[in-house]
Amino acid sequence: MKEFNIQPVDRALQAAIQQKIDNLNKPKGSLGRLEELAMQVCLIQQTLTPVLRQPAHILFGGDHGIEREGVSLSPREVTWQQMINYTRGGGGVNMFCRQHGFKLRIVDVGVDYSLTPDPSPKGEGSVVFLDRKIARGTKNFLYEPAMTAEEWERALTVGREQVDACYAEGSNVLCLGEMGIGNTSPSSVLMHLLLGIPLPQCVGAGSGLDAAGISHKLNVLSQALEHYRAVSEGFTAADTIRYFVGFEMAAAIGAMLRAAELRMVILVDGFIMTACMLAAQQLCPAVRDYAIFGHCGDEGGHHLMLNAMNAKPLLRLNMRLGEGTGALCAFPIVDSAVRMMNEMNNFENAKITKYF
Amino acid sequence: MKEFNIQPVDRALQAAIQQKIDNLNKPKGSLGRLEELAMQVCLIQQTLTPVLRQPAHILFGGDHGIEREGVSLSPREVTWQQMINYTRGGGGVNMFCRQHGFKLRIVDVGVDYSLTPDPSPKGEGSVVFLDRKIARGTKNFLYEPAMTAEEWERALTVGREQVDACYAEGSNVLCLGEMGIGNTSPSSVLMHLLLGIPLPQCVGAGSGLDAAGISHKLNVLSQALEHYRAVSEGFTAADTIRYFVGFEMAAAIGAMLRAAELRMVILVDGFIMTACMLAAQQLCPAVRDYAIFGHCGDEGGHHLMLNAMNAKPLLRLNMRLGEGTGALCAFPIVDSAVRMMNEMNNFENAKITKYF
Repeated sequence: MKEFNIQPVDRALQAAIQQKIDNLNKPKGSLGRLEELAMQVCLIQQTLTPVLRQPAHILFGGDHGIEREGVSLSPREVTWQQMINYTRGGGGVNMFCRQHGFKLRIVDVGVDYSLTPDPSPKGEGSVVFLDRKIARGTKNFLYEPAMTAEEWERALTVGREQVDACYAEGSNVLCLGEMGIGNTSPSSVLMHLLLGIPLPQCVGAGSGLDAAGISHKLNVLSQALEHYRAVSEGFTAADTIRYFVGFEMAAAIGAMLRAAELRMVILVDGFIMTACMLAAQQLCPAVRDYAIFGHCGDEGGHHLMLNAMNAKPLLRLNMRLGEGTGALCAFPIVDSAVRMMNEMNNFENAKITKYF
Repeated sequence: MKEFNIQPVDRALQAAIQQKIDNLNKPKGSLGRLEELAMQVCLIQQTLTPVLRQPAHILFGGDHGIEREGVSLSPREVTWQQMINYTRGGGGVNMFCRQHGFKLRIVDVGVDYSLTPDPSPKGEGSVVFLDRKIARGTKNFLYEPAMTAEEWERALTVGREQVDACYAEGSNVLCLGEMGIGNTSPSSVLMHLLLGIPLPQCVGAGSGLDAAGISHKLNVLSQALEHYRAVSEGFTAADTIRYFVGFEMAAAIGAMLRAAELRMVILVDGFIMTACMLAAQQLCPAVRDYAIFGHCGDEGGHHLMLNAMNAKPLLRLNMRLGEGTGALCAFPIVDSAVRMMNEMNNFENAKITKYF
């Protein structure tokens, strides 16, 4: 795998940042999580006056071979239908991008349909559609690896290049989302393999399976793991990850790694994107310094995965839409933390009795 | 007490609203709390296309007689110092009002200092300071009622009139905050008296008391309650509330009741404002239909109070600053819910296979 050169954040500034936070005119610690976030963003940016510039959201789309096994309530065609819907501005991701001023890039990395960008997206000047299709869906990991080593590299590169494009446009904060019917399945498997959590605790309802559906999904994934274990001797971490993930997930992993390399703030969304961050940190542990976890969703196992990763999500709004929507909803909180560092008066300037 | 004529929300539209939500292009229920919020705002506004107009934040300030008993780590002078700081734009409340487009009204209802509005607030065109002082702080409720029945009515009227002013300016969403050193004490007492929760569970650190300080505060409040019980035979709910609360809290209660009367969305902040909503619902239960609880804070007992009120806060960010900051941070979530109703495509328009 082509190397990513991610530097852990330099903590030399930590004491100076903390001193500034403690001198803002408020009881010490009284802005809670905002103070922790401010510290993290200051360390990422190596400054006492952080700034969030040109927020960018990249939504990667791809289909999954495993979908053929009936592991999802939603049919495969929903992937391409939704991708078109996003280019037209009608998805959940669109409204939150508009609300929070994110430029949206919609990237087909492996959708099983020939998507042609809508020539006239209505009022959606900040939506870009890009065709970076590697294949029309992954292979079925019940029987074989989802993608080849070469496809994996190509998908990582798609992610890397999209982040480079955002960075070139001046962005220093990135949110990632996904569309891919069936993608809770590889996410559950990664959670099981990389964190050692028993598989039944990793498998949930996805877009709405009932108990029988979940039981079938668990059965399919158990069989897939059995087959994987028979063939995976000598696998690297990357080999294990590419055995299961979709192209949209591989691209997201590449995007996360490149964003950390560029010292960008990374907003992590729900179950799928958390699994991608888990995979990314397996490849390069330092990526975690750049990750802010936006939302703990309703998908069974997401809170277990976050706990096992020692990740504290900002929001818990029982959402499970994907697309990056949970992370987008958390953006104003990060913005608040940054404003605190720049706009809040300190005790001395405000002439307020310091009372602690 | 002058009557407030609050109508419970009419639920006749509920089925039509739910049908619209269920037809948006997402797995059913997958926007979680946003869907519940959308329902509430639609019912308040009696529409399937809700809108949030001219958001307004009112911050009431007042001092507390009980502060003389050493129940707060912060000295009394911090109230007026912070009030001046807010008029100059340097407080926590200011940055969040700027971030989320709230017009800020800072109202002196009972600060123990002669505040004169800064003639030239820098770049703060949307901050208004108003002198509605009733007295320089309340009486000390360790010995006597914090305010007279006449002062209570005047404070309610201050709140009512401020909401009328916001409404006249086109606002239909209101956030309330407070500044008043010592005001966790009356809030704890109300929580104890109105919800029957044992006093020790209602008393916390406020702006930063240590264990000995909390123990002293608990002792003072126990004595105050003992005296109150000896004199309170025949008290109405209003008599009980005014025995303890500060002018800023009474004004907030009046504001909440008037906002509900005008069918405005009310964003409820932390420990103090939740106690005020508790008091308001004691006076007029229907006020609760209009309340959205923004944030569960760190003050000991806030989560217990919310649970006992069956209130589900949107955020838990370990904040305990007051001023309405927690509720302001929750505003984008409410905005997201409203956007969902207006901007998200439905399955039919988006030509997406409905998969549930």
